[in-house]
Amino acid sequence: MPVTTQVRVRYAETDQMGIVHHSRYLIFFEQGRTDWLRAAGSPYGKLEEQGFLLPVTRVEVRYRRPARFEDELIVRTTLVKATVVTLDHRYEVLRGGELLVQGESTVACVDREGRPRTLPDALRAVLSV
Amino acid sequence: MPVTTQVRVRYAETDQMGIVHHSRYLIFFEQGRTDWLRAAGSPYGKLEEQGFLLPVTRVEVRYRRPARFEDELIVRTTLVKATVVTLDHRYEVLRGGELLVQGESTVACVDREGRPRTLPDALRAVLSV
Amino acid sequence: MPVTTQVRVRYAETDQMGIVHHSRYLIFFEQGRTDWLRAAGSPYGKLEEQGFLLPVTRVEVRYRRPARFEDELIVRTTLVKATVVTLDHRYEVLRGGELLVQGESTVACVDREGRPRTLPDALRAVLSV
Amino acid sequence: MPVTTQVRVRYAETDQMGIVHHSRYLIFFEQGRTDWLRAAGSPYGKLEEQGFLLPVTRVEVRYRRPARFEDELIVRTTLVKATVVTLDHRYEVLRGGELLVQGESTVACVDREGRPRTLPDALRAVLSV
Repeated sequence: MPVTTQVRVRYAETDQMGIVHHSRYLIFFEQGRTDWLRAAGSPYGKLEEQGFLLPVTRVEVRYRRPARFEDELIVRTTLVKATVVTLDHRYEVLRGGELLVQGESTVACVDREGRPRTLPDALRAVLSV
Repeated sequence: MPVTTQVRVRYAETDQMGIVHHSRYLIFFEQGRTDWLRAAGSPYGKLEEQGFLLPVTRVEVRYRRPARFEDELIVRTTLVKATVVTLDHRYEVLRGGELLVQGESTVACVDREGRPRTLPDALRAVLSV
Repeated sequence: MPVTTQVRVRYAETDQMGIVHHSRYLIFFEQGRTDWLRAAGSPYGKLEEQGFLLPVTRVEVRYRRPARFEDELIVRTTLVKATVVTLDHRYEVLRGGELLVQGESTVACVDREGRPRTLPDALRAVLSV
Repeated sequence: MPVTTQVRVRYAETDQMGIVHHSRYLIFFEQGRTDWLRAAGSPYGKLEEQGFLLPVTRVEVRYRRPARFEDELIVRTTLVKATVVTLDHRYEVLRGGELLVQGESTVACVDREGRPRTLPDALRAVLSV
């Protein structure tokens, strides 16, 4: 089930083309993923405190229409795949009913030294992995 | 032939994981693409003045190893495909000889109203498209 | 009367010190100023469409305590001075009742060519300048 | 004696006003300060490894003229005051001989828990404080 995040476009997120700079969507996706983790009962701040880090290992984005200053956007975040060490999410950025941008990411669970480690039990229980 | 761009990692580009935030690489790629366009004889600032805009329509990134504060990075930018309205580039971000991140992008030529238009003649001549 | 803006700290806004990077507060102030303008009946997007631009000419910031990832911040924005061409605002960034950062800015009204112009009548009427 | 840093403006640093967003100059100042510390024999990365952190406690900026995409800027960084726990720097951002932006900052030396600590001996020796 998708988790939704609201974002109002900030002036600093535009570029001289008058649209939201394409790099900012990765930050919107990250907000979506943060809200998804919180909804799954494992807020990311807590995970990091316990030594579970989730760096991004892959991102893919398709930009269909530009967003603009002060637009009210919705980011819809869905889990599309989970293993014991990785999570794949899909993101849709919408304005009104209109799809502007879609993307996917993979995050991999590592410890503070960057070595792979399995996701925490509480999260694995929720995901059945 | 690849065009190379040097980037020294800024403090503001790190995040609390102690590594370069994954969104910043899209900005490094953009610097690479800007240098590629200049090397091809069509600086992007000039293109925009003439009404040729090149918004990004697709990005894909694979993150292999993290970059850190003050790292001296090389971005190697290669054109992999060109049509009369789009350019596809590949990017490799290296530290020393080590590959950290690789990516691809598509940009599409549009006018100020966002309508597709063919790339400028000078650039098409260089690219034989 | 202050206008309040809520901001939840994004991961991308932290740096490797584990705190919100000091440059991000200028963006929080800008959000506060944007909300202040909307509350004053002159949304900034509308002003720009009508050819009134408000570039920042001065910023001063005092950082007292750090904000961290996922903190729920309040930005309190107050107008402290207005002339026919400039607006001075004060900002307070709070977490709970605690003051983290305070700042001030001046914006100057210019036209699209960067020449000074008086603020629009509707805004001047509200401000009695 | 000032330390100089070269910066070429990136597209992502512009906003829809067509100029460098005012928040980016704090990042240029930080690059200047990083280069100043390296020139003073105490690269900031090394300081952090040794447990000396230098968070910013004050910033003041005056914006005189806008910088634009692809501008080649010079940041000139000067130490204006040093105590055993703080450093004050002044920054001038120039394009050609023209002064665009000037600013000042204070950084305070703290340990990893954020408690004040005196600057490292090597740096104090250079600064005679």
